Amino acid sequence: MEVLRVFKIGGSVIEKVENLSLFLDKFEKVPGKKILVHGGGKSVSQMSERVGLPVKMVDGRRITDADTLEVVKMMLAGVINKNIVSGLQARKANAIGMTGADANVILAHKRPKVKGLDYGFVGDIDQVFGGTLRSLIDLGLLPVLAAMTHDGKGQMLNTNADTVASAVAVALVNYYKVELVYCFELDGVLKEITDPTSIIYEIDKTLFEGYKSSGVIHKGMIPKIDNALLAVQKGVASVRICNALKVDRISHQPYTTGTLIH
Amino acid sequence: MEVLRVFKIGGSVIEKVENLSLFLDKFEKVPGKKILVHGGGKSVSQMSERVGLPVKMVDGRRITDADTLEVVKMMLAGVINKNIVSGLQARKANAIGMTGADANVILAHKRPKVKGLDYGFVGDIDQVFGGTLRSLIDLGLLPVLAAMTHDGKGQMLNTNADTVASAVAVALVNYYKVELVYCFELDGVLKEITDPTSIIYEIDKTLFEGYKSSGVIHKGMIPKIDNALLAVQKGVASVRICNALKVDRISHQPYTTGTLIH
Repeated sequence: MEVLRVFKIGGSVIEKVENLSLFLDKFEKVPGKKILVHGGGKSVSQMSERVGLPVKMVDGRRITDADTLEVVKMMLAGVINKNIVSGLQARKANAIGMTGADANVILAHKRPKVKGLDYGFVGDIDQVFGGTLRSLIDLGLLPVLAAMTHDGKGQMLNTNADTVASAVAVALVNYYKVELVYCFELDGVLKEITDPTSIIYEIDKTLFEGYKSSGVIHKGMIPKIDNALLAVQKGVASVRICNALKVDRISHQPYTTGTLIH
Repeated sequence: MEVLRVFKIGGSVIEKVENLSLFLDKFEKVPGKKILVHGGGKSVSQMSERVGLPVKMVDGRRITDADTLEVVKMMLAGVINKNIVSGLQARKANAIGMTGADANVILAHKRPKVKGLDYGFVGDIDQVFGGTLRSLIDLGLLPVLAAMTHDGKGQMLNTNADTVASAVAVALVNYYKVELVYCFELDGVLKEITDPTSIIYEIDKTLFEGYKSSGVIHKGMIPKIDNALLAVQKGVASVRICNALKVDRISHQPYTTGTLIH
């Protein structure tokens, strides 16, 4: 089967125009079929503050009330998505910006209260329509997905970008050999956060358990790798966590960047 | 040839959620292939004020400086586009939201200074790729176009929604029998603005000259009808100016609403 790579970017890579431009230069160089999923949480927080909305986070997760959802639409589906799409078009990649509502590619439901806590308009994914994404890719298009979903009843929902990326990757395993690539600021998962050269090159289920129990891998990286291992279990060929600005190396053999999860 | 209808909405129809919902109920009832083009100027002005940006208009046209362009991305490509798309999905119409940058459907260039006046990031259309829109429609999708274009070099541009709609209609005349439908708040072009029943049912080039010289048609309606007559000249089968909330009547034979321009 043909290789399709699903990339996820977020954080400082997309918030600063200069960084985004550097990333797109590298991303454009990766050959083959691609999908790009993006978040944009910082810009949502910044715009929320600018319009006087309180930013509510619980355990690093955003409480998306109705007003905040409008800001998510503005920044993710509006500003960031169109910055990426126009930037890719300038590099002759035929990008098409989407949310999960567009062409109904990702159906979700509003998350029920968790121990009495209402996350607001946050969507938990029910289904990704991989066939629709494949039809768009077959037209020569490169889907650029803002991390938003919808409930099919007219409600847009805010959804974690890592989760969108893995769900999209899994939905395409019947059509492609899917590689999932999480791009971030570092060269990979590090053994020592203060030592950028201490990259863990490989993680599998057994190694992960070891790293977790010894405390080498902790905090926010745990759900990311849980997600990755789940994607592998569901048929994704590999998951890589690597530096957004070195993403062009992803197609090199042997790989020279990032942490491989398999 | 099969009929394709290109609808344009703007103004109060899309700014208020209740009105948008009423419009979408009617729009969904129009059978056949469709494209929807939308503006959203009022919401751009409101959000500009909210974030402390001065709204600059000259002769009813917005001066789109860099900060205002961000607001246009937020409101048109973000909020309004996704409200429409999720609303259509709820009505089982498979909408896909786009700007001219997405799938590179509309290329434009930044308007040069007009008599020393810089309109800012405003795009004058160079080309609409009708074949791409047709490919999407052939997938069963209903393109919902926010009135933004791009220059192919990474710059998004603000473009008048009436102009986008007519350019899109003209670009599709080789593939479909195209009908262009401008939706607004009134039942048609009126002879007497104070008399909602004084609808002008038909306008052609000769009648238009008469209405202009007698002052019956004036101001903002003149460029709209100029645009419409130009579209007809370029192969669009008909142009109709009608009430957004009666748009379901458009497919009735004989037509029972609006002004027909042919």
